[in-house]
Amino acid sequence: MVLAIDIGGTQYRLAVIDRDGGVKRIQRAKTDAAAGASWMVDRIIEAGRKLTSSGTFTACGVGFGGPVAFDAQRIINSTHVKGWDGVELSSILEAALGLPTVVDNDANLGAFGEYTFGAGRACQHLVYYTISTGIGGGVIINGEIFRGANGQAGEMGHVPILSGGPICACGNRGCLEALCSGPSIGRRAIEALDSGGKSPQLRAILRHTGVVTAKDVMTMARKGDALATKLVEATAEYLSMGIATTVNTFAPERVVIGGGVARAGRILFDPLRRATQDRVMPVHRRSVRIVRAARGDRSVLLGAAALAIGHA
Amino acid sequence: MVLAIDIGGTQYRLAVIDRDGGVKRIQRAKTDAAAGASWMVDRIIEAGRKLTSSGTFTACGVGFGGPVAFDAQRIINSTHVKGWDGVELSSILEAALGLPTVVDNDANLGAFGEYTFGAGRACQHLVYYTISTGIGGGVIINGEIFRGANGQAGEMGHVPILSGGPICACGNRGCLEALCSGPSIGRRAIEALDSGGKSPQLRAILRHTGVVTAKDVMTMARKGDALATKLVEATAEYLSMGIATTVNTFAPERVVIGGGVARAGRILFDPLRRATQDRVMPVHRRSVRIVRAARGDRSVLLGAAALAIGHA
Repeated sequence: MVLAIDIGGTQYRLAVIDRDGGVKRIQRAKTDAAAGASWMVDRIIEAGRKLTSSGTFTACGVGFGGPVAFDAQRIINSTHVKGWDGVELSSILEAALGLPTVVDNDANLGAFGEYTFGAGRACQHLVYYTISTGIGGGVIINGEIFRGANGQAGEMGHVPILSGGPICACGNRGCLEALCSGPSIGRRAIEALDSGGKSPQLRAILRHTGVVTAKDVMTMARKGDALATKLVEATAEYLSMGIATTVNTFAPERVVIGGGVARAGRILFDPLRRATQDRVMPVHRRSVRIVRAARGDRSVLLGAAALAIGHA
Repeated sequence: MVLAIDIGGTQYRLAVIDRDGGVKRIQRAKTDAAAGASWMVDRIIEAGRKLTSSGTFTACGVGFGGPVAFDAQRIINSTHVKGWDGVELSSILEAALGLPTVVDNDANLGAFGEYTFGAGRACQHLVYYTISTGIGGGVIINGEIFRGANGQAGEMGHVPILSGGPICACGNRGCLEALCSGPSIGRRAIEALDSGGKSPQLRAILRHTGVVTAKDVMTMARKGDALATKLVEATAEYLSMGIATTVNTFAPERVVIGGGVARAGRILFDPLRRATQDRVMPVHRRSVRIVRAARGDRSVLLGAAALAIGHA
C-alpha cells in the first residue's frame, strides 16, 4: 500500500492505494486559505497517521497544486494558500509518517496517473491537459514525467494563443488558460451577453446566479442555444491551437484531457477533435488521438501513488 | 574523420569533419529539382568516394531537408526535389561508401550540431530554430535529439500563431513559418506596401527587383525606416509567441536561432528578447537565454558529424 495525497486550492485529499492502482480508501477536507500552509500540513499529518496506522505502507506520494522544485523536493509557492513558499514538504512528511515521500506538481502527476492507470496505458509519449479553475499540463516522454531544465516544463495552460488577449493569472496576455479555463469560458459568456449576444437562457442564469459557469455554457450548447454553441466552438478553436502546438512539437501518441471542463463530453470533444485535425501537421493526422482522462478526479492521486511506488 | 552531408532544397554539401568538430574540407553543388533524387544520390556517392579516398573514415552522417523516418532510416519525402519518397538513403550510402551511415532531418541535426559544437555547449536542454526559406526546429533533451512518438517532434515552424492567418506550406493557416520565414517577412512587406504603407525605399526595391526580401526589411529597419521597423517588430512579436510556447512547454536552458534570418542581428534579436521576456512564465524569465547559432550554415553538417561519431 501507498499513501497518496492531493493538495489543491480548495480541498485536499488522502487516499490508500495498492500497487495495481486500486483505491482502497479516500478522504477529503476543505483547505482553509486563511489558516495557511502549516495548519494544513498538521491536518494532513494527523489524517495520514490514522490512515497508515493499520496495514503495510511502503511510501507516500504527494501532488501539489502549484510549482514544485522537484530535485530539491521543495514547494515553490501556492497562489491559493499562504505560507507554502519554500516548504520542504517531503522531508516534513517523511519525518512525521516514517515513509519515503515524493512530491511533484499535481498536473505532472495527473499525466503520470493517466499514463500508469488510465487513458495513457500502452502509450510511451503523452500530453495531458487538466482544464478546470486553471489549465495545467503534464508531459510523459518515454514513460517518464518530463520536467525540462528547471523542473517547470509542460505548462501548456500558458502557451500564448491570442496576441493582446485577456490577462492571465500568470501575468501575461492571451494564454490558453485565460481563454479556456472554466472561469474564462464563463467570463467570455458574460462578455458576449454584455455586448448584446442573444441567449435568453444564459441571460436568465446570469441574472439569477450572478455568474455564468462553463457548465452552464456546455449545457445550453447541448440544448441548441446558438450563443452557447458559438462559445463552445470558440473554446474548441482556442484549445485546438494549444493542442496542435503540443502535437507538432512533442509528437505524442495521445492527448489526454481531464479536469471539470472535460466532463462536457462530446459537445466539446467533437468540435475540438475536428479543429485539432485541421491544425496538426499532416503527418500527425492519423496517428494522434485526443481522449478524455479515464480516472476523472483521481488521476493526480493515482499518479502520486505510481510515483511513490517507483520511488520506494 | 567522418563524412558529413547536408542535403537541402537548393544545394547539397559534403564535408570532412574531425572528432572535435574541425571542418577539414567542404564542397557544395546545386540540386537539380528536375533531375530528381536518384541523379542526386549518384552525384553524392561520386563526391563522397573522392573525399573519403584518402584518410581514415569511421562513419557518415546525413542531414536531409525534409521529414525522415529515423528508426527505419528512410526519407519520407521532399517538397523541393522529386523522387525522394521512401528512399532508404543510409543503406544506399553504406553500400556505396562502405561506411556506417545515419540519416536524420536537417533541423534535428542543426540542433545537435549547435548542442555539440556551438551555442548549446554546456547545455543539456535546448530548443533550436532555423529561420530561412522555411522554419525548422529541433529539440535536445538530456543531450539527445528528441523525436517523439513518430519521429516528427520539434516542428516549431508549424505551431499555430494566428488563427485564420496566411496559408502555410504545410496546408494549415497562421503557422509561425507562414508569418516569420524569410519569404513570409517579404510577403508581409509587400502586403503592407499594397495596402498603402509608406516607405519610399522599400517601394523602390519592390519596383526594381519585383520582390522584397527579409534582408531588405532588416536593412531598412536598421536605417530607421518606419514601415520596416514596424514589420520587424511584428516579426519579433510572432516569433516571441512561438518561442514562449516552447519555453513554457519544454523549459530549455537556451533557445538557439540559426538560418539566414538570424543574420539580421540585434535589429531583430533586441525586440525579440524583449517580447519573449514578456510572454514566458515568470519562472523562466531569468533562466532562459535566446542566442544566435554559433556555427552559422555549418550547424547541420556538424550535427551530422556528431551523430555519425556517436553512431559509429
